[in-house]
Amino acid sequence: MSNQIENVIGLWEQLRERVPLVHCLTNEVTKQFSANVLLAAGAAPAMVEQKEEAQEFVGIANALLVNLGTLSDVQKEVISATVASANEHGKPWVLDPVAVGVIGVRTRFAFEILKEKPAIIRGNASEILALAGGEGRGKGMESGIDTEEAVEAGQHLAQETGAIVFMTGETDYILSTTEKVATQNGTPMLGRITGAGCALGALTAAFAGLGESPLWAAVAASSLFSVAGELAARESTGPGSLAVGLLDELYRMTPERLRGNAKIFSSTVS
Amino acid sequence: MSNQIENVIGLWEQLRERVPLVHCLTNEVTKQFSANVLLAAGAAPAMVEQKEEAQEFVGIANALLVNLGTLSDVQKEVISATVASANEHGKPWVLDPVAVGVIGVRTRFAFEILKEKPAIIRGNASEILALAGGEGRGKGMESGIDTEEAVEAGQHLAQETGAIVFMTGETDYILSTTEKVATQNGTPMLGRITGAGCALGALTAAFAGLGESPLWAAVAASSLFSVAGELAARESTGPGSLAVGLLDELYRMTPERLRGNAKIFSSTVS
Amino acid sequence: MSNQIENVIGLWEQLRERVPLVHCLTNEVTKQFSANVLLAAGAAPAMVEQKEEAQEFVGIANALLVNLGTLSDVQKEVISATVASANEHGKPWVLDPVAVGVIGVRTRFAFEILKEKPAIIRGNASEILALAGGEGRGKGMESGIDTEEAVEAGQHLAQETGAIVFMTGETDYILSTTEKVATQNGTPMLGRITGAGCALGALTAAFAGLGESPLWAAVAASSLFSVAGELAARESTGPGSLAVGLLDELYRMTPERLRGNAKIFSSTVS
Repeated sequence: MSNQIENVIGLWEQLRERVPLVHCLTNEVTKQFSANVLLAAGAAPAMVEQKEEAQEFVGIANALLVNLGTLSDVQKEVISATVASANEHGKPWVLDPVAVGVIGVRTRFAFEILKEKPAIIRGNASEILALAGGEGRGKGMESGIDTEEAVEAGQHLAQETGAIVFMTGETDYILSTTEKVATQNGTPMLGRITGAGCALGALTAAFAGLGESPLWAAVAASSLFSVAGELAARESTGPGSLAVGLLDELYRMTPERLRGNAKIFSSTVS
Repeated sequence: MSNQIENVIGLWEQLRERVPLVHCLTNEVTKQFSANVLLAAGAAPAMVEQKEEAQEFVGIANALLVNLGTLSDVQKEVISATVASANEHGKPWVLDPVAVGVIGVRTRFAFEILKEKPAIIRGNASEILALAGGEGRGKGMESGIDTEEAVEAGQHLAQETGAIVFMTGETDYILSTTEKVATQNGTPMLGRITGAGCALGALTAAFAGLGESPLWAAVAASSLFSVAGELAARESTGPGSLAVGLLDELYRMTPERLRGNAKIFSSTVS
Repeated sequence: MSNQIENVIGLWEQLRERVPLVHCLTNEVTKQFSANVLLAAGAAPAMVEQKEEAQEFVGIANALLVNLGTLSDVQKEVISATVASANEHGKPWVLDPVAVGVIGVRTRFAFEILKEKPAIIRGNASEILALAGGEGRGKGMESGIDTEEAVEAGQHLAQETGAIVFMTGETDYILSTTEKVATQNGTPMLGRITGAGCALGALTAAFAGLGESPLWAAVAASSLFSVAGELAARESTGPGSLAVGLLDELYRMTPERLRGNAKIFSSTVS
C-alpha cells in the first residue's frame, strides 16, 4: 500500500505546483461548490459555456470535465463541440454521467458522447451499470446496487471504451482493463452535500490534467477528496459544517495527512 | 398546541423514513442552497430543467416545486409542461411566486399557472397580496405590509384556488378555507441569507410529497425550518455561519428539539 | 489617511441605512455568493435575467452590475438592453470584464458595451490592460503582471472612458483622470474563494447606487470587503471557513473596525 500512497502524494505535489486549469461544463446546481473544491485543492476552474468560448478555452486548459447533471439542449451542442476541441488539442476529458439510466434524454446523449473517448468515466454504481448496458436502479441521483456486479460492469465498460472507470460509493473503485484499485476513505455524510460527487469529478479532471496516468489521476482524486472529507467529518456537526470543513481540509492537506490516512488497495485483473 | 406539534413530529418522522424526492424548477441563484436544505433535512432534490427530462422525472418524484425567482422564457415552457405532467401523475406541486406583483412578466405568468391547481402557494405578504388581486408593495424580494390585511387576502386566495396559502414573515401563516395556523419561530437574520425563502418552498414540497394534508405539510415545513434557524442563530455570528448552522440543525433535528421549541397556534375560520 | 477612512465610513453608514438594491447580470457560478455578500453587507440583490423583466427591474434598482464571467449569447442581448435601460433611468452601472483579453467573444463584447459609459470598471490587472488596449497575460481568471504598467493603463482607460477604474490585486487601485487611491487590506486566501472578485463587483455597484462619487464608491467597496476578509482570515483554517467568516464580518462591521483596519492612500495625478 505504501507505494500507492507515494504515487498519490507525488501527483498531489505536482497539482499544487502546476495549478492545472480545468474547463468544466457541469451541473448548474453545483458549479460554485465544484469551483471552490478545485481552488481549495490547488487547481483552477473555468466554467465558460458559450460554444465558441468553450472551444477556445479548452485549448488553454489542462483538462475538461463534462457533467450531465443538468443537461440542456444548448449544453448538448456545447459539450459536443468542446469535447471535439479537447480531442483536437490532446486534452484529456472526464465524463460524469449523472443520473444516466434514470432518464431517457441524457442516457441517449451519454452513449453518443461516450464514443469521443473520455480518459476517465466517474459515476456511481447505478450510472456505471447503465453505461455498461445494465439496468440502473437509481433513485434520483442515488443508488443501491450489488457492488460486485457493478465492478464487473465497470471493468467491461473500461474494456469497451478504453477509459478508466472510477466508480464511487462506500468504497471507490478505479478500474482499467488490467488493474483494479480500491480506496476506502470518506464519510457517508458527504452524500448530504449537493455536488460532492460533481466536485470529485472536477478534481479528477484536475489530476488528469497533469498528463500522467489516468488511472492514478482517479486514485489521487479519490484519496485526496475522501481523506479531506474524513478529516472534516471529525470536526463537523452536520452537512453544513462538513462542506466548509472539506474545503479547509483540501486547502491544508499535507503529505503526512495523506500518508497517515489514505487507504488504497490495488490488484491486477487476471 | 401539543397536538399540533405531535402532528409536525409525525410528518417529520415520515420524511426521514421515506426520503421524498422533490423535483425543483427553481431560482438559479439559490439552487445549491435549496438542494442542501433538502438533503440536510432528509429529503432528496432533483433539478433537471430540460423539458422532456423534467416531464419524465416528475413522474418518479414525490412532489414538484415551481419557483418563479429567475423565470426565463425557456423556463416558462418547461414549467407549464412539467406542471401538466405532475397533475397527470397525481403529484402535488408548490408554487413560490417570487417577486410577483413587482414585475409584469412573471405576474402575468403566475396568474396563468395558478389555474393548474397548486397544492400550496408559498410567498411573502407582498406576493400573496398580488396574487389575491391586491397591490404588492415589495422592494425587490422584500415586503413591508399590514399583516391582517394580508391574512385576509391569503384566505381569499385559498378560497379562489383551493390551495393552501403559506404566507411567511415574522409570523408564518398557513391558511385554508376553514383553518388558520400560525407558527412563530425563526430569526430575522434568515432574511440575510439568499434563498432562505426558496429553500423553505422546496422543503414544503418535500412534506407535500408525503401525500398527507397539504395544510400540515406547510405547517411542518415552517416549524422545522424556523426551529432549525432559531437554534442555529444561537451559535451564529452572522449570516455566513447562520446558513451553515441551519443545515447542521436540520440534519440533527430530533423530536425533542421540535417539541421543546416549535410554537404553533391554530384556529378555525368562522 | 484619516479623512479618507471617514469618507468610507460615511458611505458605509449610508449603505446600511438606505439598503441599495443592486440589479446583477452576473456570472452564473457565483450568483449565490454575490447575493449573500450584498445581503450581509446591508444591500439587496436582484438577479432577474429575462430581458423585459431586467429592463423593468433596473428602473426600480439603485444600480446595475454587469459581469461577463459566463457570458452567453442570450445574456449579451439582455445586457445590452438592460444597460440601455439603466442609462435611460440614470442608474449607474459597473462593468466587471472577467477574463477579457483571454477569450475572443467576450473581449469583442466588452469593447462594444464599454461605449455605454459604465460608472466604474472593476477588474484585475490583466483585464484592465486588455481593455486599455494592452496585452493581457491572464491564466484563467488570474493574472501576474507588472503593477506600475497596469496602473498607467488603468489611468489611460479612465481617461478614454470617463469611468472610474478599480483595479484589484494585492493592492487595490482606484483610478480617475485626476486621482489615484490605493487600498491595502485583504488576504491572498481570498483568491481561493470562487467569486470573491465578482462579489466585490456587486458590492461596488451597491455603493455606486448611493449616488455619491463613483471614485469613493469603489474605495468604500474595496475597503469594506478587504477589511472584512482580513478580519475573517484571522479566524479561518482555509477558504471554506474564510468565505463563511467574510459574510459574518461584513454583517458585523462597525465604524471602529473600519477605522482601526482600513489602509487607504490617495494622491493627485499630475
